[in-house]
This record gives sequence, C-alpha cells and structure tokens, in this order.
Amino acid sequence: MNEIIRNIKTRRSVRKFSAKPVEDNILNEIITAGLYAPSAMNTQLWQITVIKNEDMLVRLQKAVAKALDRPDYHRFYNCPVFIIVTVPEDYRHGAVDTACVLQNMFLAAHSLGVGSVWINQLRDCYDNREVRELLTEAGIPENHICFGCAAIGYPDCELPSDRENKGVVKFF
Amino acid sequence: MNEIIRNIKTRRSVRKFSAKPVEDNILNEIITAGLYAPSAMNTQLWQITVIKNEDMLVRLQKAVAKALDRPDYHRFYNCPVFIIVTVPEDYRHGAVDTACVLQNMFLAAHSLGVGSVWINQLRDCYDNREVRELLTEAGIPENHICFGCAAIGYPDCELPSDRENKGVVKFF
Repeated sequence: MNEIIRNIKTRRSVRKFSAKPVEDNILNEIITAGLYAPSAMNTQLWQITVIKNEDMLVRLQKAVAKALDRPDYHRFYNCPVFIIVTVPEDYRHGAVDTACVLQNMFLAAHSLGVGSVWINQLRDCYDNREVRELLTEAGIPENHICFGCAAIGYPDCELPSDRENKGVVKFF
Repeated sequence: MNEIIRNIKTRRSVRKFSAKPVEDNILNEIITAGLYAPSAMNTQLWQITVIKNEDMLVRLQKAVAKALDRPDYHRFYNCPVFIIVTVPEDYRHGAVDTACVLQNMFLAAHSLGVGSVWINQLRDCYDNREVRELLTEAGIPENHICFGCAAIGYPDCELPSDRENKGVVKFF
C-alpha cells in the first residue's frame, strides 16, 4: 500500500479540535489542494471562503441554529478554521464539484496531521436572511449557494484505527 | 510538499487509454480507496459497479447515445474499466457522497500510474428504459440513481504538467 492510499484509508472525521491554530503555510497547502479538484468541463466555479474570525463564527453559528431551529447546534465543533465552499446557484454540477474540493482538502489536511469534518448545516439555511447577510459580509457572492463546509483544526482526540466499509461492490 | 499533496496536484483527467488491462490487484486498491470515502452520517449507501465486459460496455454506450440523442458519444473513451457509482434515489446526500467516492478512486488510481476521468453521461439517462435494463443486468438496484461514473485505464497520453487554478479564495 502506498502513502497516498494509506492516507485515504486512515483519514477519519474529527469532531474535537485543540485550540492550537493552524499555521498559515499548512492552511495554504490544504486550500491549494482544494483548488486542484476536478470539475465538470474544468469550469472550477467554486469559491473557498476561509473563516478564522471568532466573532464571525459565533454569529454564524447563532444565525444557523436559529434558522434551523436547532438551539443545540455547536459552533462547528469549536474548530479554529471553518471553510465554506460555494458555487453559483445556476451551475448544475455544484454539489459534486463542492464534494471534490472538500475531499481534496480533507485528504491534504490529514496528510499534514490536521483533522477535518464535513459540516452540512449551511446547506439548509444559506438563503435564510440572517445567514445570507453574514455570508455576504464574509465575501460570498449573493448568487452562490452552499453544498458543504469543512471544520478544520488539530485533533484533540484519537482517530479510530479502522472502520467498517459498508458500500457494495459488484463486478460485471 | 508531501507525496499526498503532490499526488493531488499532479492528477489530471485522462481521456485516452491504452489497451493494457488494469491488473486485478491494482483495480482492487482503487475500488477500496473509494469505499473509504466519507458520507453523511457515515451511511455509506453507495454501490460501486465495475464493468470490464466489452459487450456490456458497447451496449451501454449505444443505449446512452440513443437516450441522449448523441450518436457521436464515445464508448467512454475506450477505457478498459468503467465504474458506475450509484446511490438510493431517496437518499439526500447521494451527489456529494458519490463525488467523494470518485475522487478517492481518481487519486488512488493516479498514485498507481492509472488514469481516470469523470463521466457524466449516465446522470441524464439512468432511468431511460433501455439504459435501466442494462444497469439492472449489471446488478445495479432498481431504486439506485447515478450522479457520476469513472473511466479507468492506463494513459495513452502525456499528462499536462500544470494547470490554471481558477477558483476564488477569500479569507475572513
């Protein structure tokens, strides 16, 4: 098994992060990996918005919790870095392109000792008025929608050593 | 730059394949990488259907070309291995989960010297009657739908050394 496949197989979702900041050079490597994702017809229409500002993260969490009527929602597992991937609303392949960007970033992060988890909360409320105002303040275009985000940071937990793969494989 | 990030950055879509078969052990490593993809709530509802049977691939190409009224459509770039990822139609996160499975397989393939490209043709015709009959024959459940496929094989072309990244990055 080579290092690339080992990295794929050992990456786990991390939901508990240490307070240690992610260094800029490490974060840039992770973001750049996302930029190298494939896209339909190589359009690369995504925007990667990286939020480290604590005030913004708290306000965003509150707006999301209110929009979804989920007062129990956490501040994105208290991650030090929250990354929002968005795509134009009229782009047909936005969901799958977003996922490739996120998966590249997850794998790059893991290879650098940084943990990550997919956050789905924004998907159901990006167009809520209060949420949208915050996204606009963060520089996300008004015509962009969100299919996925990433919480990023150094893990404050052990990663499970293996996992049960439940997907079905058929050969023909 | 570590090997994982180098692999992410140097992977390119391949649309010209040599006739050389992909060895079973190599193919199994690629498929297994797909099985390790993240999924919403760790549901892993995907099926990975691997088609090497030439007769099936020719019939599938003809049915797809007819369904989409695209007589010019190629036999999936004459790849030796065609992989169809499917998910239950009533599963909300099928598109993004499919993309993570495919991106894992693309990256694992590249690390093993195997080329790959995302094929979108089935997305618009998986429920066409003739196409669905072939999918059923290949073992794909009737309630599964398709957001993406992969053409896999050894490249019969040079990979471009770099590419222009057009995605936007913002920090807040």
